[in-house]
Amino acid sequence: MVKIAIDMMGGDNAPNIVIEAVKQAIHDFKDLEILLFGDENKCDFKHERVKFTHTDEVITMDDEPVRSIKRKKNASMVLAAKSVKDGLAEACVSAGNTGALMSSGLFIVGRIKGIERPALVATFPTVTGKGFVFLDIGANSDAKPEHLVQYAKMGEIYAKQIRGIDKPSLALLNIGTEESKGNAQTKKTYQLLKEENFENFIGNVEPKTLLLDASDVVVSDGYNGNMVLKTIEGTATGIFKMMKDVMTASPINKLAALTLKKDFGSIKDKLDYAEYGGSVLLGLNGIVVKAHGSSNERAFYNAIKQAKLAADTKIIDKMTKAVGDING
Amino acid sequence: MVKIAIDMMGGDNAPNIVIEAVKQAIHDFKDLEILLFGDENKCDFKHERVKFTHTDEVITMDDEPVRSIKRKKNASMVLAAKSVKDGLAEACVSAGNTGALMSSGLFIVGRIKGIERPALVATFPTVTGKGFVFLDIGANSDAKPEHLVQYAKMGEIYAKQIRGIDKPSLALLNIGTEESKGNAQTKKTYQLLKEENFENFIGNVEPKTLLLDASDVVVSDGYNGNMVLKTIEGTATGIFKMMKDVMTASPINKLAALTLKKDFGSIKDKLDYAEYGGSVLLGLNGIVVKAHGSSNERAFYNAIKQAKLAADTKIIDKMTKAVGDING
Repeated sequence: MVKIAIDMMGGDNAPNIVIEAVKQAIHDFKDLEILLFGDENKCDFKHERVKFTHTDEVITMDDEPVRSIKRKKNASMVLAAKSVKDGLAEACVSAGNTGALMSSGLFIVGRIKGIERPALVATFPTVTGKGFVFLDIGANSDAKPEHLVQYAKMGEIYAKQIRGIDKPSLALLNIGTEESKGNAQTKKTYQLLKEENFENFIGNVEPKTLLLDASDVVVSDGYNGNMVLKTIEGTATGIFKMMKDVMTASPINKLAALTLKKDFGSIKDKLDYAEYGGSVLLGLNGIVVKAHGSSNERAFYNAIKQAKLAADTKIIDKMTKAVGDING
Repeated sequence: MVKIAIDMMGGDNAPNIVIEAVKQAIHDFKDLEILLFGDENKCDFKHERVKFTHTDEVITMDDEPVRSIKRKKNASMVLAAKSVKDGLAEACVSAGNTGALMSSGLFIVGRIKGIERPALVATFPTVTGKGFVFLDIGANSDAKPEHLVQYAKMGEIYAKQIRGIDKPSLALLNIGTEESKGNAQTKKTYQLLKEENFENFIGNVEPKTLLLDASDVVVSDGYNGNMVLKTIEGTATGIFKMMKDVMTASPINKLAALTLKKDFGSIKDKLDYAEYGGSVLLGLNGIVVKAHGSSNERAFYNAIKQAKLAADTKIIDKMTKAVGDING
């Protein structure tokens, strides 16, 4: 039996989409037990494998991360993280305040010994639908080259365990492919990555080939990773908006668009984060999954599924061992 | 009469597209004189306002920037830059090796006194077609907050003079809009920008709103600027590829696509760098314009037009005065 703690109150569409996702997950996975934290007046779903803990304290999107988790000790997110810390659950999932969830991970769940900075990892969609493992996408804005080497190690394990890729290719996000390209940080990181014995380090990868399956794992500092992530989202949104304008510009266009609508929809689906579950805060002594703030039911369900897979594959044990190998 | 020096041999499609662009520019602007540098055997265009200087030395895309401009003293690019240095031309334009052109700018044309680092600026397209002034998009990968303040000042002048925008809004590229967001560099830069008396500093801007006319001028260090630029290009290319696949997937799709083809084409045009001319290396004692390496005739023509506008509006004098103001 895998036990997962869930913050019912986090995210733009909570608690409804959370409850629906929990229902679905409980139905699909017979070896799943859920510890649900939230307002009992807002949930009428009962199941023998769902253990409800009532709290009416909530961390909002506007709360200051570190302060809020210290003050709101009974917030649904804090209680979910605490159940991981106490060994009552193997993983926790929340769509709430990202900073607060990262702080909960750091200060409540705690780091793996030897990991200096946890990293936020996500499987990011590509044009073919294959996707790639991308980290750090926003946990630490100021990272050192040594931190990026740890991210690489964690990303490699994640790709193997969660995505089932044998000998995943590993690349460093950079503005050029040549070894000499980039800023002081990427140049130093490149050298360190070369010195480590990664199975399949393929060098630098440029953002323009990211969506074309350039590498199975792509490593970046959190500032750049987050920047690139938001740029991809922003560009896609902008182009889809222009496409929509074209497709509704005239009656003839509307008619032609009817034929293509479904297939164009599949483009959007391919680039949809909802298919890939949430981001995982790697480097902690427990699994902490961040579902997108505007998650729908499907996205939250995939985040639960991802947490379960991480628990099933004993990713924390493997991460802990690997970090020992890095440092020893 | 405005004199512009042109490297006939730089870029993927040289010299043909360069010669065609020169013809067009000479035709359109009666007050334009061109100093053309390249292989005379490859150009049969003659005009009383085109002064040809023959050289068969060329800097290639693979040449190491600084070394090549020192060794290949008669390369077409070097001669074009030298004519600006010697006051024979007010501007030079090249679609050749970016690093070599930047080195030519730095070491041949020279910096404006007080400018520590020149910045590469471009007008980048937005969804509405308005566009924004974006710098530094790749001149310096490791910049200090103080350099970004100089970029802001230069970008503001550029937006006023080249784009004719009165009181342009100015923003700092960042991963969040709040003052406290970002890495150590952006946090410090934000404070410095606030302290300076910019007419219209509007704070941070996220990449997801860049294409939605978030600000007239956007400032970044060269590493991030280049990263975001390449990410936008890569994402657009990926989506357009998927669109094309959809539109040719079946006979019915092809038929429907016929109707929409022209309007979808206009989306690509809107995001086409070719309409916006080249990038300008700002902070030098002369106008140095970099046309895209894969420029077509229209893109190179627009780069010449941009160089002429910069000369017409005496942008170097204004920049020099403004930098005096920054430092004094």
